[in-house]
Amino acid sequence: MPRKRSDVEGKLTNLGKKVLKDVEAKQNPSIEIPIRSLSNVVYDEVSKSLKLGDKSAKRYLFNVAHAKKFTQTMMVAAFCKELLKEGIHTSLRDMFYNLKRTFPGSSENTFDEQRESDPIVVDLEVALDTLREKLHLNADVRGRVVGNAVIQDRGDTVNWAKLGSGGWAIPSNVEDIKFKKVNAKFVLVIEKNAAFERLHEDKFWQKHKCILVTTQGQPARGCRRLVQRLAEEHKLPVYVFCDSDPYGWYIYSVIKFGSMSLAHVSDMLGTPTAKYIGLTVSDIDKFGLENFTIKARDVDIKRAKEMMKYEWFKHPAWQKELKMLINRKIKAELEALSGRGLKFMTQKYLPEKIKNKEFLP
Amino acid sequence: MPRKRSDVEGKLTNLGKKVLKDVEAKQNPSIEIPIRSLSNVVYDEVSKSLKLGDKSAKRYLFNVAHAKKFTQTMMVAAFCKELLKEGIHTSLRDMFYNLKRTFPGSSENTFDEQRESDPIVVDLEVALDTLREKLHLNADVRGRVVGNAVIQDRGDTVNWAKLGSGGWAIPSNVEDIKFKKVNAKFVLVIEKNAAFERLHEDKFWQKHKCILVTTQGQPARGCRRLVQRLAEEHKLPVYVFCDSDPYGWYIYSVIKFGSMSLAHVSDMLGTPTAKYIGLTVSDIDKFGLENFTIKARDVDIKRAKEMMKYEWFKHPAWQKELKMLINRKIKAELEALSGRGLKFMTQKYLPEKIKNKEFLP
Repeated sequence: MPRKRSDVEGKLTNLGKKVLKDVEAKQNPSIEIPIRSLSNVVYDEVSKSLKLGDKSAKRYLFNVAHAKKFTQTMMVAAFCKELLKEGIHTSLRDMFYNLKRTFPGSSENTFDEQRESDPIVVDLEVALDTLREKLHLNADVRGRVVGNAVIQDRGDTVNWAKLGSGGWAIPSNVEDIKFKKVNAKFVLVIEKNAAFERLHEDKFWQKHKCILVTTQGQPARGCRRLVQRLAEEHKLPVYVFCDSDPYGWYIYSVIKFGSMSLAHVSDMLGTPTAKYIGLTVSDIDKFGLENFTIKARDVDIKRAKEMMKYEWFKHPAWQKELKMLINRKIKAELEALSGRGLKFMTQKYLPEKIKNKEFLP
Repeated sequence: MPRKRSDVEGKLTNLGKKVLKDVEAKQNPSIEIPIRSLSNVVYDEVSKSLKLGDKSAKRYLFNVAHAKKFTQTMMVAAFCKELLKEGIHTSLRDMFYNLKRTFPGSSENTFDEQRESDPIVVDLEVALDTLREKLHLNADVRGRVVGNAVIQDRGDTVNWAKLGSGGWAIPSNVEDIKFKKVNAKFVLVIEKNAAFERLHEDKFWQKHKCILVTTQGQPARGCRRLVQRLAEEHKLPVYVFCDSDPYGWYIYSVIKFGSMSLAHVSDMLGTPTAKYIGLTVSDIDKFGLENFTIKARDVDIKRAKEMMKYEWFKHPAWQKELKMLINRKIKAELEALSGRGLKFMTQKYLPEKIKNKEFLP
């Protein structure tokens, strides 16, 4: 999408021009950056996502407390401009090494550690209202996909239905992929690879005309963005399938609402229409999994209690599940379904849930 | 490869027949299992891999100390026989749930925790001289591949050169994939995804006619086996590219020689012909990376000292690198190469190393 790329390039250029104007007007050059601390994170009921509030702060060049950060921000912005111009992508760590040097005539380094350059990228993301992927800075990578869709990417046509027992390894940056043909009724997002491989081997995606994505744990940004693009651009329902424990449920909430640390990009990474298909504590009784549960640890109980207070878990259906976990002190993994037979998940659990539209909001 | 599958089926059948013969002869039924403790792990100079020695132990049904484990072994063997018959694969955790139950008329469970069933699988692997993948038990999954090769898998033809910016997500089990066309001069195995994505974006594999694999950290079994199959079945040189630190070097040694905990399957997972392309401590001076090193921590120094004693790091070239790390207390990551420019790795470092055959053994 070259259109969007040039938008970001325009934004970077405007940032530079604004600073230049300050200089020419003999004013103290400054950049305005929205505040990202938790005090400025709000849950937006309408869009059903975590968002930044409207507090912001100015960063000045001629201010002893700001000068270094101001310079670092300009360096990172210039670096990204160069990436866009050359059409290449890189990682935060590579950027850190590339920018790391000693200021001429001083003993001061541009950046001493990566933990100095990482937040600058987030600052820019927020200030320019963009994604770091659009600045060509790639995030960590995780996740695989198979199913009824054909994409186009870097000139290649990739058919997600023709990948053998493997899958398409989701890259860290999915901004430029194009969906050529999406012949699916829904997207099933799976926390664990073992369940993904079971469903893949059973050709679940073929029988139920869908797309299977495994996040392999907490979803990476590329994975979240891919799911969002499928939901928004192709109006596909998204069902999320995780362990019945606070960790699994939080994965769902990150996919749906966004995460607190990345609240400024929820609208670009979150999928507010996503629904939770399972596992739940109720499933344990309903599907006869009593013998395959695990005792919840203190940390699970504590986490569940915290989650009960989150705005986005206030729905009675979720409050009920959280309360059951706390009271009964049990949790269950996706693999627990294998207690009822290896194909129970493929042949009974998922088809029944989908048919009866038994989802949590 | 149905030939090999039936071999494993035959081995499982023989195991059952042997026990049945004991029963019919009114002897105490027993299974012989090679010992896997470190005391029975040896480094084999000829095959250049870690192997099990020839100590073994017998497990009896009528022996209070053995009875439960004997029964568990029979249960797992029967479960695998069933998997092979049905042509399906599963994970260790799913197997655990599937086999977990209470012995009729007792309060004793077949398995209480997965840490009881996992070692039984290894016992069978050793006793039957096979891979758990051939028993249809899948391992954790990690790793991606792109490059000049076409494979066939589950009826699909997958061209590793036509995967866009993503890659082929290596499945946990690569026993059944067939190489249709391998048009590569070597395999480059990369520890980190960021370097993999850099080389992929720069079409390194196209220019240098090769296959790129990223292990994404410690290589999963599927990834190791895939590299081995490319090396053995297609006589491809394998070059391993890791951080210059004990962790990265150990990844190399696992790919080449095998790991101590999986010494019994080194011959099926290791690639003894693999060579180490970098990074090394010597590279820091040679390629001007002095400003991009990291201070080695105490744990790195300790680990390097241990590694100096390993038989398979006794080569003078490795002893020199290990000693330099210990004395200079520095290490370097793959991303350090970006200090010299983002394309330094693609255009200078790797081509020069390959051209001059500058590898460590």
